[in-house]
Amino acid sequence: MTDIAMIESARARLAGHVRRTPLLSSPFLDEIAGRRIFVKPECLQHTGSFKFRGAWSAISALEPDVRARGVIAFSSGNHAQGVALAAKLHGISSVIIMPADAPRIKIENTRAYGAEVVLYDRANEDRDEIGARLSAERGLTLVKPFDEPLVIAGQGTAGLEIAEQAAELGIDKADVLVPTGGGGFISGVSLALEAKAPGFTVHPCEPQGFDDVTRSLKSGRIERNDRQSGSLCDAIITPQPGNITFPIMSKLCGPGVVVTEDEALKAVGLAFSRLKIVVEPGGAVALAAALFHGEGLGDTVIAVCSGGNIDPDVFRMALDQQAA
Amino acid sequence: MTDIAMIESARARLAGHVRRTPLLSSPFLDEIAGRRIFVKPECLQHTGSFKFRGAWSAISALEPDVRARGVIAFSSGNHAQGVALAAKLHGISSVIIMPADAPRIKIENTRAYGAEVVLYDRANEDRDEIGARLSAERGLTLVKPFDEPLVIAGQGTAGLEIAEQAAELGIDKADVLVPTGGGGFISGVSLALEAKAPGFTVHPCEPQGFDDVTRSLKSGRIERNDRQSGSLCDAIITPQPGNITFPIMSKLCGPGVVVTEDEALKAVGLAFSRLKIVVEPGGAVALAAALFHGEGLGDTVIAVCSGGNIDPDVFRMALDQQAA
Repeated sequence: MTDIAMIESARARLAGHVRRTPLLSSPFLDEIAGRRIFVKPECLQHTGSFKFRGAWSAISALEPDVRARGVIAFSSGNHAQGVALAAKLHGISSVIIMPADAPRIKIENTRAYGAEVVLYDRANEDRDEIGARLSAERGLTLVKPFDEPLVIAGQGTAGLEIAEQAAELGIDKADVLVPTGGGGFISGVSLALEAKAPGFTVHPCEPQGFDDVTRSLKSGRIERNDRQSGSLCDAIITPQPGNITFPIMSKLCGPGVVVTEDEALKAVGLAFSRLKIVVEPGGAVALAAALFHGEGLGDTVIAVCSGGNIDPDVFRMALDQQAA
Repeated sequence: MTDIAMIESARARLAGHVRRTPLLSSPFLDEIAGRRIFVKPECLQHTGSFKFRGAWSAISALEPDVRARGVIAFSSGNHAQGVALAAKLHGISSVIIMPADAPRIKIENTRAYGAEVVLYDRANEDRDEIGARLSAERGLTLVKPFDEPLVIAGQGTAGLEIAEQAAELGIDKADVLVPTGGGGFISGVSLALEAKAPGFTVHPCEPQGFDDVTRSLKSGRIERNDRQSGSLCDAIITPQPGNITFPIMSKLCGPGVVVTEDEALKAVGLAFSRLKIVVEPGGAVALAAALFHGEGLGDTVIAVCSGGNIDPDVFRMALDQQAA
């Protein structure tokens, strides 16, 4: 099980390979939100999302002879790119199983990072089954997207950075908002902050219609989403919280915040104009929560922007929305 | 005259107020350029450009009673915003003289940062004269955009960061490309790197038709641009190098690199898709130079992206260009 020692070890393995993303802010955003907002832009991480942290953590921890046989992963996109690049930089091969309706840019980028991409039908095929079969056939190690202690430990390194950066600013109390799919990122961040910034409260943020984590935290048991596709927030629409991540979130997180797609797009537009960063809708739900759902949050909010792999057409929608 | 001691002093005054921007990279950009490219995204600086550094440096160095009377500045936009916010954070008033044809977003933002904005006609009025008159009338201190040692020292703090970040990556030889208008930024960066990274060669980058610095370095005397407006790269189209900056650039810089507007827009698009940052065309000329004018450059290039205050319509042009 992931603990702070595992996160510290992951950080040591990631040192010199992962980017320390800055903490950004804008008086214009503070004004909209009526509180201080800081943004941790993990869209600036290698491969455009925090996923590179967990991928590096998992691959770097493998025994050399196991690692040499290669890795396999299944992902709607950002985990795919993280694993593909981390594998390439370790000099090993990777197979990535992706839904056929994933954004074009993510499929192309994953291939460009050197991975072999296997597409599947999200509605009719079981990606876990495909993954298990391929990994048995070729001796590949499966790098799970979130329900894996080493991956959670890697994501937690972003939490260590948040704790340090907040301390530099003299912040000892804050709500930390994290875009949440399966819960690997928020679990790692929550564990890191539990140890390093105990005055912080972490909240999962999700798009309407895909609020499985928020509902699960409320009911106290794992709840599923009805739909499993069809959101602009494609990066974070996993079916349900993980078996490993749910107990961590239950223990450590405050209530979830749910935003509309429209609010996520507005946050993408404001991140463009006010922070000069490129965020994808799923990666912008925490910023949207900070901007438009401040009720129940304190004076200081740290919103993680988790990824920036957005199709230009969707980005145009966000620019249009802002002009309207 | 600015020297490394002044830059170090500026850094001490800026500590805790200026953002340390990271060093970004992408294997996709390296492939286009055929060499390693690192990007210093000063678009992520407060107010969306490096100008905040120089403004803070100048204002923080004033005697308290002089500072209390307020400051004045003239600028095509980014210097305006830097001075306006630095003044506001010091609790003093600012008057900003701006060309009437500056991008709307820059005028609006400057007002929103609390400055009084005075517009002038770029073709028929002399901004220096207006500035001198207002500053005499109201007892304001003029914060010059580039030809001012304290401003140059502030901009040089970005050079200190580049030297440290490159050293962490084990880089001891590189070409450093800097978008150049009047030459304040590149002068500060060159002075910092002369002291801290003597293996680096700094090159000014400019848009076609506004290559006064490149021509001046070649001829050995100050050359003027024929046109003084009408470029998408509005941030860096000053009429000629400064009297203080030109000798510094002559002594320390390698030859300039000139790019087309089209190349600058392509660089804006690639910064969007590959680095997840928002860069304005004038701020992207160094990245364009690294990507499309590598002849004469070495294996490792550090391109500064100096600003990100771009109108959404211009950003759409860059997205369209990329799709084409």
